[in-house]
Amino acid sequence: MVATTLSPLAPASFPALPPIAGVRLGTIAAGVKYKDRPDVTFITFPEGTVVAGVFTRSLTPGAPILWCRDALKASGGRARALVVNAGNSNVFTGDEGYNASAETARAAARLVGCPAEDVLVSSTGVIGVPLPYEKIVGALPSVVLAEDRWEAAARGIMTTDTFAKGATATADLGGVTVTINGIAKGSGMIEPNMATMLAYVATDAAIGQAALDAILRDVNERSFNAITVDSDTSTSDTLLLFATGTAGNAPVADPASPALADFRAKLEAVMGDLARQVVRDGEGAQKFITVRVRGAEDHAAAKRVGKTIANSPLVKTAIAGEDANWGRIVAAVGKSYEKVDARRLTVTFGGQVLTENGRVRPGYDEDALTRHLKGQEIDIEVDLAVGQGEATVWTCDLTHGYIAINADYRS
Amino acid sequence: MVATTLSPLAPASFPALPPIAGVRLGTIAAGVKYKDRPDVTFITFPEGTVVAGVFTRSLTPGAPILWCRDALKASGGRARALVVNAGNSNVFTGDEGYNASAETARAAARLVGCPAEDVLVSSTGVIGVPLPYEKIVGALPSVVLAEDRWEAAARGIMTTDTFAKGATATADLGGVTVTINGIAKGSGMIEPNMATMLAYVATDAAIGQAALDAILRDVNERSFNAITVDSDTSTSDTLLLFATGTAGNAPVADPASPALADFRAKLEAVMGDLARQVVRDGEGAQKFITVRVRGAEDHAAAKRVGKTIANSPLVKTAIAGEDANWGRIVAAVGKSYEKVDARRLTVTFGGQVLTENGRVRPGYDEDALTRHLKGQEIDIEVDLAVGQGEATVWTCDLTHGYIAINADYRS
Repeated sequence: MVATTLSPLAPASFPALPPIAGVRLGTIAAGVKYKDRPDVTFITFPEGTVVAGVFTRSLTPGAPILWCRDALKASGGRARALVVNAGNSNVFTGDEGYNASAETARAAARLVGCPAEDVLVSSTGVIGVPLPYEKIVGALPSVVLAEDRWEAAARGIMTTDTFAKGATATADLGGVTVTINGIAKGSGMIEPNMATMLAYVATDAAIGQAALDAILRDVNERSFNAITVDSDTSTSDTLLLFATGTAGNAPVADPASPALADFRAKLEAVMGDLARQVVRDGEGAQKFITVRVRGAEDHAAAKRVGKTIANSPLVKTAIAGEDANWGRIVAAVGKSYEKVDARRLTVTFGGQVLTENGRVRPGYDEDALTRHLKGQEIDIEVDLAVGQGEATVWTCDLTHGYIAINADYRS
Repeated sequence: MVATTLSPLAPASFPALPPIAGVRLGTIAAGVKYKDRPDVTFITFPEGTVVAGVFTRSLTPGAPILWCRDALKASGGRARALVVNAGNSNVFTGDEGYNASAETARAAARLVGCPAEDVLVSSTGVIGVPLPYEKIVGALPSVVLAEDRWEAAARGIMTTDTFAKGATATADLGGVTVTINGIAKGSGMIEPNMATMLAYVATDAAIGQAALDAILRDVNERSFNAITVDSDTSTSDTLLLFATGTAGNAPVADPASPALADFRAKLEAVMGDLARQVVRDGEGAQKFITVRVRGAEDHAAAKRVGKTIANSPLVKTAIAGEDANWGRIVAAVGKSYEKVDARRLTVTFGGQVLTENGRVRPGYDEDALTRHLKGQEIDIEVDLAVGQGEATVWTCDLTHGYIAINADYRS
C-alpha cells in the first residue's frame, strides 16, 4: 500500500462519542494482513438489542454479506456481537470463505454466550485471498472490551482511510434523551448502492426491529446512498444499526410514529456526517463537492442526474484542476438520459447562475468562479426545469492521488 | 491544453487511403480557436451520394447534432458536403448556436451548388462558447480540395488526439471491387452511446440509403459502441457513412442481401480499426485492454458487464499499476447487476484461468500474470456461466496522464 498522508479535507479531530450503556468495544492486532496495528474490532451488545442492516447490491458479494443476511433471517434481528477485520475482505473465497465467517461468528458467540446467528461479521480489504480466520478466532478472547473505546473501534476498521470516522448526537424520544453513535470506514470503491463500505451505528433507544429497519432504509437513501467517490460499488458494503433499548423510553413499534421525528432527524445527521466523512477521505481527494439537482421528474431521476455528474471523470478532473469548465456539467446532465429542458436548464456553480436560454449567461463573473474553484468546498446546482424532483449528492475530485493509491494497492 | 506526446499505443504510421472518385477533401487554418494549425475540414461528395448517420444519445446535444438530424430528415439522406471544425463544439450555445451551424452549412452549399440540407456539419472542442462561425464561412472558399487529402482531413479534425486516425479496406460487391475509407477523432469523453466523438466513413459502393442506415447501425454496435475511455458520453458524437455509388456495382437496396456480406465484414474491419485507434489514443493511455464477456444471459447483458469492467476506475488503475489485482474484476462483475453464477464465474486474465468454484484457482501462476501486465496489450475474459450471450469491449488504463490532460484542458 502507498503511504498516505492525512486528507486535506479531514475534520480537525475525532468527536467525543459518549458511552452507550452495555455497548462494549475493543480491538486487537491479530496479524490478518497488517503488521503492528489493530486489525480486528470486537463489539458486544446487551441482551435485548435489535439490529437492522442494509448490504451491497453487488451480485458477487463477500462471504460476510452472505453470513449477515443468513444471521439476520435466523435471529429475526437480534444482535449480541459484531466482529470486523481489516486487510482481507473474504470476497470470492468460495465455501471456505463462508465457513471462515461462520467460524468467526461462532467464536464470538461462545465468548458472549449467545447463538451464532446473533453475531454479525464484516471483512474489508483485498479480494480473493483466503481469510486466515484462525488468527481472528485465536485473538478474540484477548480483546479488552470497554464502553469508552469508540475511537479505537473506528481506527480498527480502517484500510486506506487516512482518518478515523465517528459522529454522535442525542435525540428526544418521548421525553427521554437517547444517544446515537456511529463509526464508518471507506475511502475507495465507493458508490453506495446502499452504503459506504462499512458503517455501524448504535443507539440506546427502544425501537422495534421492523421500525428500525424502515427508518434505516429511509435515512440511508439520503446519506450513504447519496455519496460516491469513484462509482465502484464494493462487494462488502455493510451498514448496521443497533438499538439496545436501554435508554428507558417507551418502546416504539411504528416507524411513522410522530415520537420518532427528532430521532429520525438526528440519525440522519449522524449518518449524513459519517457519509460525508467518507467522501472527505475519498482516495486522493482535494475538494469536497456538493451536487444539488432540482426540477427533475422525481427524486429518483434527480438522484441519477446527481450521480452522473458526481461520477463524471471529466467533471471531477476539471474541479481537481480548478478549471471553470462548466460545460462538462452540461455534458454530464445530457448523458444521464434523464428528462431535461435543455433550453431552460440552469447551471449554478459556486452560487453563481452561469446559464440562461440554453447558453452561457452573458457577463457571468469568471473570476468569481475561479476563486470558488480554488477553495476546498465546491457547490454545483442544476435545475432541469421539467418537474419537482430534488436530490443532493456528495463526491470529491479525481486527482493524481487516486491514481497513485489505486495503481499500487495490492502489491 | 497540456502539451501531449504521442500515445505509446499509436500505430506506426497513418495508412495509405486511396482516392474515392469524386470525394474531395481539404483543410484550412481558420483560427476558430487554435493558432497555426488547420482547424476546419471541408469534404465534398459527388451528386448521387447518400448518407446514413448515428448521433449521441445525449439529451444536451450540440447544435451540429440538431442540424444534422434536421438535414438528414429534410434531404432524405442526400449528402454533398461535410464541414468540421475543431476547437469549439458549439454545444449549449442556444439559438445562436443552431444558427451558426446553419450558416456554416449554407456557406458550403453555396460553394457546392446544393441545398443547405445536403450539407452535414460537426464541431468538436470546448462546450458553451459561442462558435465564431464567420471565420469558418470566410475561410471555406479558400480551401483547396483534392481526392488525395484523407490524412490531412484526419489531422484537421483532431483536438486532444496525439495521432491522426484512418483506416481503409476494399470489398467485393457483386463482382465489383469497392473501397471503404474512414477517419476518426477522439481521445477523451468517450463512451459511445453510439460512437466515438467524430467518425466519417466513405465508400464508392452503390447502396440504397435505407440499407446503408441499417448496416451502419448494426456494425456500429460492434465497433464504436464497443469502446470506452472514461465513460463520458460526448454531446457531439457523430458517425456518418457516405456512399457515392460511383464504383459501378449493381445498386443494392436490401440490407440483408447476401451480396453485402463482404462489404459488411470490411466495413466492420474499418470501423473497428478506427474505434480501437480511438482507444489507443485514450487520454493518458499506456495499455490497450480487451474485455471479452461470455456466458451472459444475452448480448446486451454481456455488453453491460463488459462496459462495467471497462469503466471501473479500480480495474483501470490496477492495470495502469501493472498490479495483478483481479479481485477488482470480480467486484466490477458484481456491480453490473447482471445475472451471474458467482460459484461458476470464470475470470481469465492474460490467457490464464484464475478462478474455480467461486474462489481463486490454487497454484495459478502469479508471475505469468505479472509478465502479462507488464505488456501493452491486456486481455481480460469473464464467463458468467448463465447463458450464451457474448460481447467484446475495448478500453485503456487510467493513468496520471488522464488527470494531467483533463485537469487543465479549457484554461
